[in-house]
Amino acid sequence: MASFRARHASLAQALGNLSLLVSAGQLQSRNYAGNPYPFRASSHFIYLAGQRGPGAYFLLHQHHAHLFLPETTMDDLIWSGPGEEWGPIADLTGCQLHPLAQLATFIAEIDPQNLAVIPHPDLRSNQVLAELVGRYPSLEDERDRLGAQALLNLRLYADADAQSELQMACDLTVEAHLAALNALPRAQSESDIAAAMARVITQAGGTFSFIPIITTCGERLHQVRLGNLLQADRLLLVDVGAETASGWGGDVTNTWPVSGRYSSSQALIYNLVLDVHRQVRAELRPGLEYKALHSMAHKLFTEGLAQLGILRGGTVEEYLEQNVASLFFPHGIGHLLGLDPHDMEDLGDLAGYAPGRRRDPRFGWSSLRLDRQLDEGMVVTVEPGLYFIPELWEAPQFKELAHKYLDRERLQEFSDVHGVRIERDYLITPVGHELLTPDMPTTVEEIEKYIAERKG
Amino acid sequence: MASFRARHASLAQALGNLSLLVSAGQLQSRNYAGNPYPFRASSHFIYLAGQRGPGAYFLLHQHHAHLFLPETTMDDLIWSGPGEEWGPIADLTGCQLHPLAQLATFIAEIDPQNLAVIPHPDLRSNQVLAELVGRYPSLEDERDRLGAQALLNLRLYADADAQSELQMACDLTVEAHLAALNALPRAQSESDIAAAMARVITQAGGTFSFIPIITTCGERLHQVRLGNLLQADRLLLVDVGAETASGWGGDVTNTWPVSGRYSSSQALIYNLVLDVHRQVRAELRPGLEYKALHSMAHKLFTEGLAQLGILRGGTVEEYLEQNVASLFFPHGIGHLLGLDPHDMEDLGDLAGYAPGRRRDPRFGWSSLRLDRQLDEGMVVTVEPGLYFIPELWEAPQFKELAHKYLDRERLQEFSDVHGVRIERDYLITPVGHELLTPDMPTTVEEIEKYIAERKG
Repeated sequence: MASFRARHASLAQALGNLSLLVSAGQLQSRNYAGNPYPFRASSHFIYLAGQRGPGAYFLLHQHHAHLFLPETTMDDLIWSGPGEEWGPIADLTGCQLHPLAQLATFIAEIDPQNLAVIPHPDLRSNQVLAELVGRYPSLEDERDRLGAQALLNLRLYADADAQSELQMACDLTVEAHLAALNALPRAQSESDIAAAMARVITQAGGTFSFIPIITTCGERLHQVRLGNLLQADRLLLVDVGAETASGWGGDVTNTWPVSGRYSSSQALIYNLVLDVHRQVRAELRPGLEYKALHSMAHKLFTEGLAQLGILRGGTVEEYLEQNVASLFFPHGIGHLLGLDPHDMEDLGDLAGYAPGRRRDPRFGWSSLRLDRQLDEGMVVTVEPGLYFIPELWEAPQFKELAHKYLDRERLQEFSDVHGVRIERDYLITPVGHELLTPDMPTTVEEIEKYIAERKG
Repeated sequence: MASFRARHASLAQALGNLSLLVSAGQLQSRNYAGNPYPFRASSHFIYLAGQRGPGAYFLLHQHHAHLFLPETTMDDLIWSGPGEEWGPIADLTGCQLHPLAQLATFIAEIDPQNLAVIPHPDLRSNQVLAELVGRYPSLEDERDRLGAQALLNLRLYADADAQSELQMACDLTVEAHLAALNALPRAQSESDIAAAMARVITQAGGTFSFIPIITTCGERLHQVRLGNLLQADRLLLVDVGAETASGWGGDVTNTWPVSGRYSSSQALIYNLVLDVHRQVRAELRPGLEYKALHSMAHKLFTEGLAQLGILRGGTVEEYLEQNVASLFFPHGIGHLLGLDPHDMEDLGDLAGYAPGRRRDPRFGWSSLRLDRQLDEGMVVTVEPGLYFIPELWEAPQFKELAHKYLDRERLQEFSDVHGVRIERDYLITPVGHELLTPDMPTTVEEIEKYIAERKG
């Protein structure tokens, strides 16, 4: 990975006098310390030194990259075996390697005013960091914010290795989705679908990059319980990403008919979402403001819902003015994708929002996670969705709006839709964009044909 | 679950004036707060109120059981759907239900000297608890220790519902192991085996109860990397537990030959481990000191290794005196099993060790996690194992011992063994014990026959 060296060099240039310390993090207890969750190094650490740890640290100091690793104890030897050899790690990462015990000495020699530390989102990992550097790392601290800014300015734009890692993650994600679709004709429950995907991802040495959303209640945007049987009249919404062993992940959503055939109401909504996806996708290119895509989707949904007779009693301008479509599209059009499903969300909106920009407070719009001008190398999702959430129409803050503009009788005819989302991953190229997740049936016709062929 | 009420009543009696607060815990960040690890409530909480949360609390106060649950916000509604209805939860758990917002008022009315809190092993979850009660919960605090003691005295002995939950967990664990064994003839890698098990467990709505150990390097006791291809001359050690949706888990280890046939050296060691397992198992009954089983296994291994000519240059008495067999059997003979793989290890040795007892400092013996007299209702594992760890024989503290008593030439003949462990789960009954994990091929003959039948 030549990229590690190039990343260190670019980072060093951006940091100037500042040194930067990045923690891989500590094991996190599931039941008790000896039974942790599967360890994953922090994404910032992976970006600079690959998947290793726990207890590993990356330090960039005076334009040199250092990696500190815990030494193998007798207990490690018995319980986990000898650690990796250091020579190949040094070759691979371009770092100078040191035993962890020497980190304190290194830190003592750095002027504290020049030491930036990336905060770790896990409190204990951050506390161990705090004990090392004598203060709590925090984005409120100017040094740490400058350090994070320098790092995110790199991570925003996928270099060649990042692109290749993301492509592998997207390929595995597609493979898992196809396994789900292959399993669909014989599946009895949401868990059966999860099992088919878990198998493919585990076999490849990967893991789910976020808790899988596999649900016949697509109107619950992040419904992660897998309790439902697959009823024939339902749509199954599958929002699943695979993370490869090296830590990069994809993020794809499909919405398939359990029976193999979309009902006419399901097809109407599916096609509207797909049409919005395609129109939004067509705009992806350097120079475009990502937030404009959200506005565009919102407007297209407004027009589409009006055409379907779901909105009534006003004009399209009025619906837009009143933000009515957000009742059906209450999330953002997409987000950054990289080592994290919502890339760099551990830094709050520092990565997702260009300097000086803030979240739009309006319902729905406030969930938009990305408001930057697109540029070559950025990787983003596009994921329009429509959801029918009756509780929302009855909620005190929306009741009046819903009463005024929603046609409840017409809505009844869409009661078998629940939720539809279509999500794909795109790399911004010099001339436009590239779909990282091809080879996935996407139209109503493609999906129905694919399922029919597997029903046998 | 009638047991919840009975548990509350027994706990109330044991606590006397003391009130007890138990946290389910908070979501733990994997990459960032919005991308958490799959949530699992703390085992103490599950024992008293079932799998719910995050952010839920159980309070036993003046002989009444209270359950505090976060109220569904508009965001929850959109992202996760409406929460469970409270009526059925109250019926099921025997608790009075309250919105979480009322917990602070309840706590304010309890004399702080009478409030025991179970510490949560996750630092942030424990910090949220600390903010609630105005101090850090800790087993160093006498109140908290008394509360933990009262609770563990219940959890040590499985009641009817606990037994039934554990039986389901053990059944699923066995099912996963059989899926692995079915997959073995066609598997190419450790990951293939993991995938077969993940599929079965996921399909049942469960999860791995600890990070799976599936390795052709069985001499690394808790080797969790899944990087190896399955070479025909190797043994595959599979130490995997399945946790059901309700939070209870099994814990089983099998050691199978990749080729379908044990080599003569592998069979010799496998049979020695199996013989020790059987002799230890035969002793399981109320009144027995569990540590005596470790001594027994250690003695049997010593005799067996001497008979095999692996130990030489001394008498069995001398090997025992010098603790030589621990070089091949460096872990404990087993542990408590329940909601946790090592049940209640979050309480340190408070549960595993009877009052006044401490770990034996000798190598190997210090890893024994249970030193109590067995009694009806206890659930324990038995897991003798033998490992060939050349690095251990060269380690400074063991070099002399190894040189004196190990026959290196003879050891060469066992170089294809690496590690063998055979682990099963047992319930202590009034008259002896019951195997919770039957229906698993266990002898060399049974295993070879099982694999041969699946090779087709």
